[in-house]
Order: sequence, then structure tokens, then C-alpha cells
Amino acid sequence: MPVYVMGHKIPDSDSIVSALSLAYLKNQIGEEAIAVRQGELNPETAFILKTFGVEAPALKTTYAGDSIYVVDHSDRAQSPDDLDQATVLGIVDHHKLGDITTSAPLECWIRPVGCSNTIVKEMYDHHGVAIPKEIAGIMMCAILSDTVIFKSPTCTPVDIKAVEELAVIAGVEDFKALGLEMFKVKSALEGTPIRELVKRDFKDFDMNGNKVGIGQLEVVDLSIFDSIKAELEADIAKLREEGERHSVILLLTDIMKEGSELLVASNDISVTEKAFGKTEDGKVWLEGVLSRKKQVVPPLEKAFA
Amino acid sequence: MPVYVMGHKIPDSDSIVSALSLAYLKNQIGEEAIAVRQGELNPETAFILKTFGVEAPALKTTYAGDSIYVVDHSDRAQSPDDLDQATVLGIVDHHKLGDITTSAPLECWIRPVGCSNTIVKEMYDHHGVAIPKEIAGIMMCAILSDTVIFKSPTCTPVDIKAVEELAVIAGVEDFKALGLEMFKVKSALEGTPIRELVKRDFKDFDMNGNKVGIGQLEVVDLSIFDSIKAELEADIAKLREEGERHSVILLLTDIMKEGSELLVASNDISVTEKAFGKTEDGKVWLEGVLSRKKQVVPPLEKAFA
Repeated sequence: MPVYVMGHKIPDSDSIVSALSLAYLKNQIGEEAIAVRQGELNPETAFILKTFGVEAPALKTTYAGDSIYVVDHSDRAQSPDDLDQATVLGIVDHHKLGDITTSAPLECWIRPVGCSNTIVKEMYDHHGVAIPKEIAGIMMCAILSDTVIFKSPTCTPVDIKAVEELAVIAGVEDFKALGLEMFKVKSALEGTPIRELVKRDFKDFDMNGNKVGIGQLEVVDLSIFDSIKAELEADIAKLREEGERHSVILLLTDIMKEGSELLVASNDISVTEKAFGKTEDGKVWLEGVLSRKKQVVPPLEKAFA
Repeated sequence: MPVYVMGHKIPDSDSIVSALSLAYLKNQIGEEAIAVRQGELNPETAFILKTFGVEAPALKTTYAGDSIYVVDHSDRAQSPDDLDQATVLGIVDHHKLGDITTSAPLECWIRPVGCSNTIVKEMYDHHGVAIPKEIAGIMMCAILSDTVIFKSPTCTPVDIKAVEELAVIAGVEDFKALGLEMFKVKSALEGTPIRELVKRDFKDFDMNGNKVGIGQLEVVDLSIFDSIKAELEADIAKLREEGERHSVILLLTDIMKEGSELLVASNDISVTEKAFGKTEDGKVWLEGVLSRKKQVVPPLEKAFA
């Protein structure tokens, strides 16, 4: 029986690509594995897969009775709703340790690096398995995406080394140029419904019993949001109520200016202000903040503690 | 500021040795680390350390404000009581994934192998760090202990390979003979208070909201317990009440006959009988059962689900 390799709900490029790259590795070492996804591809991921001619994983939202590898997360809020009826064989992740537990020993490769695919690269090296050209290409792009082309504080020397090695395998000379092209695709808003933008890269967190949703949009120029900011603010307020969330935060990240504007909808703004300082009409600019994981979630968890 | 490396409460040989072996490795790769222990050494561990001339880690029971590496467990029941006030930098473990969570990314090396020291060996290889002779010796013994000299169903080819390589480094020719000598030390009961025997290798588990304590005594000949079995039974009944546990189970494991007698004290014996079949006066012989982790905890968790 094959095992499934699956990233988080509302998958980003790392979630899709690490499912593909880990599934390929598992098959090479004699374990039949199928990459799947819990949600729709975002435009950036579609661009990455198209660039290297790789097919997207199939959509799969229920896992009862299945054996699975979990990639790019370790918390239940981002896992399938029927996770308890599945067997988790392993976790490959680069986030804080979440609340998934198992009833049998498993394999966890969790590292404080910038991208899950950096860890998958380590696993290929560990097993002595060669990475095919097209898999190397998508892995390289996933790392460039998660590390914001090495600008994110989550980026480590291991990520940079992995990209450099993967670029050689993929035959990509100017990986930074490809990265910027990718972020331009990511920045495109035209014609996208507001809710789709808000939820493009959106994760729910459990913070001391409070449900907090945090979305992030990374663009090459923040002014792109000027004409729709009011709509975004209205929509996160609606999303907060619909999901019975304590707060919804949307990070508008400018990867060139290297900072983020936070839009906040909260039933108690004092908590987010404790974490990030005074907001103005539910908004605040945070210089140098690029990483949800490293710069937004930890101070927020402290504020909720 | 140094970081601490710490195994579980009521430490076994793997918990003590993996703290020592991981701390040594961390120091070699430029991270100041100190091995510590949460409880007293058992006779087997004392024998191992004495055999290779290695000093025991210091006792340390509070960790508020400290940064720590957690070895040989990943659940709160076996962690320090003030774990929430510490920063978990990493976990090295070979058990099921427990309920420790973190608020920042970390390093986890978790593998479905027979011993944490097998994983620490992988880490030395990964970092290209040479293992000193005496560290290799204690690591080898820890693996022989956890895998019951390769007889446990938890033992994998990776564990065997690690022992073989460590034996060469340690200069031990007949590691099986040393393993048997070690288990004879482990079997010695004379003069040991009953409660000390019951708690020598004892772990509490949270099973669907129920506190269940499971101890294990591994000996080379089960008849050694004949004269004290009634006292053991009385004591686990007392221990159950004292700790407000649903059940306390004591595994008396015969490593030569390769099976275990279960002594059960429970406020609802039907649950344990669902897991292990009919008991007689709270006792049942389980042929082939050597591993608490792989053969006792999973069926029990299912019975509690």
C-alpha cells in the first residue's frame, strides 16, 4: 500500500514541492510514496512547476486509514481533519514543534532552517540518492521562495548552500533572477478575488486556546495594495467573525523594502499591540519583518501566554 | 550561556548516555553543552559508566530560563515540571511523538530505531565528528541495553550496524558477552527496596486523559522474582492509588526466554484485558513481548481510545 506525502492546508510552494521531492526520494529508497496536496496551487507554485515541467500532486483531503508523511508543518490546525484516523510515519518540517502526536515511533527530520526542501536535500544526501534535474529546480525555487531570496531572517547558511548545489543540478545559472521573476508572479493581483488573496497563504494557529489566523502576501512593491487595502481590511474582519477567531492578521510584505505592513482585525487589539506596538486604524508598519514564523508568531504567542 | 542536554525522569541507560554523547558532540561543533540528569542512576547505568571510566552527569531538576536539548523522550509527563519556562532547542528520540510543543523552530532527530544513541551516532557521522573511545563504549552499551542485545522487536539493522562500529572504536571484541554481563547487573535485586525496583524503569503515559504508569524490569531469569512477586503486586496497587493513576503495569521481562509477565493494578482491568487478553489474579504471560514501547504502549493506547 502506498504512503502519501502531504503538506499543509492552503499549500504554499514549499508544501507542494517538499511533498513531490520527498515522495520521489522515498520511491528511490524502496518505499512506494505518492505526493498529494490538501488544497489549490497558488500562482507562484504553478509558475515553479511549469518552469521545470513537473506535474502537480493530486488533491486529497481525507486520509482515514492511510499512512502519511507530513511535510512543512507539525500542527493539527494545518493537518487533515481526519488525521487521528491516519498513521503518521514521519514529519519533515522547519517550523516550531506543533501538537501532532503519534502512537508509534516515527521519523522526524525537523531543522531550524529556512525551508523544508533544505531538509529534504539533506535527506537525499544522507541516503546517497541523486536528485533529478527538474526536482532540483523546483526544490531550489521553494527555498528561494521561503527565504525571500535569502533576505528572510529565517535563512541560514545551509539554505544558501542547498540552493547553490541545486542550481548546479538544475542547470540554472542566475537563480536570483529566477527568484525575482517568481516573486513578480507572486505579486500579481489582477482579477483575483479579495478573499482568495487573503487566504492565499493563510494559517490558523492555536494560541493559548485562542484561534488566530495569519495570512501573508509577499510582493516586490507594496504600493500594489493601495487601491484594495480597504477591501482587504474589511475582509479579514469578516473572516475573523466567520471562523470565530480571536484575531486575523494579514502581513503585507515588501521584499524589496524588507518590511511588512500588518493589517489587524481583533476582538482585543491590546494583545496584538502588546506584540507589535501601537497600531493605527488596525495597521502598523514593521521594519525588517519578513518572516511570519520567526518574527510574527513568537511575539504573538508571548502576548497570548 | 551553556545549554543543557537532558533525558527523561527516572533515567535509564539510554537517557544518561545520550545526554553525555550528544553534549560531547555539541561541544565539538561549537555549542557549549552540559549533560545533566533528572534522577538517580540505575545499577546498569552505573556499571556502564564505570566500565568505560565516564563520569555521571550532574543531577538537575529545574530548567526555568534554560535552553535545553531533550533526549530519549518527547512527552511532557517525562519532562521537567517547569518545561514551559525553558527553551527546547532540539529533541533526539526514538519513541512515538509526544506532546512537547515549542514556540520557535528547533532541531529534531527522531527515528524509529531501537535506541537514541543510534541516532546520536548518525549525528556524529553527519557532522564528521570522531567519537572518543570511552563515549563509543557507553553508546554501544546503551544500544545493547535498549535493544536487549538485538532481541527486542524494536531493534533495526541500523542499531546493529551502530553497535558493530562503536565496538571497534571502543576496542571491545565480544560485545555480546559485555551485554550479558550488563544484564546480569541489571538483574540483581538483593537488598533493593520493592518501591525502588518498581520505579527503576518507570514511565507515566497520558492515555486519552488517563494516567497510566508502566514499569519494566528486564532480567536474565524470571524465577528471581518468585519470592517477591506478591510484594511487587501490592506495591503497584499502592503506587496506582498514590498517583491517582488509572492503571499501573509492571513488565517482568525474561530476556533469555524472550517474553514478559505483566503485573496489572487497575481501576478497570477490562481495558488492559482488551489490550492483552485475560489476566489471572492481575497477571498474564506474554510470549515474545520484550518492548514496552512497541508491544505494550500501542495496544494499550488503542484500548483506551
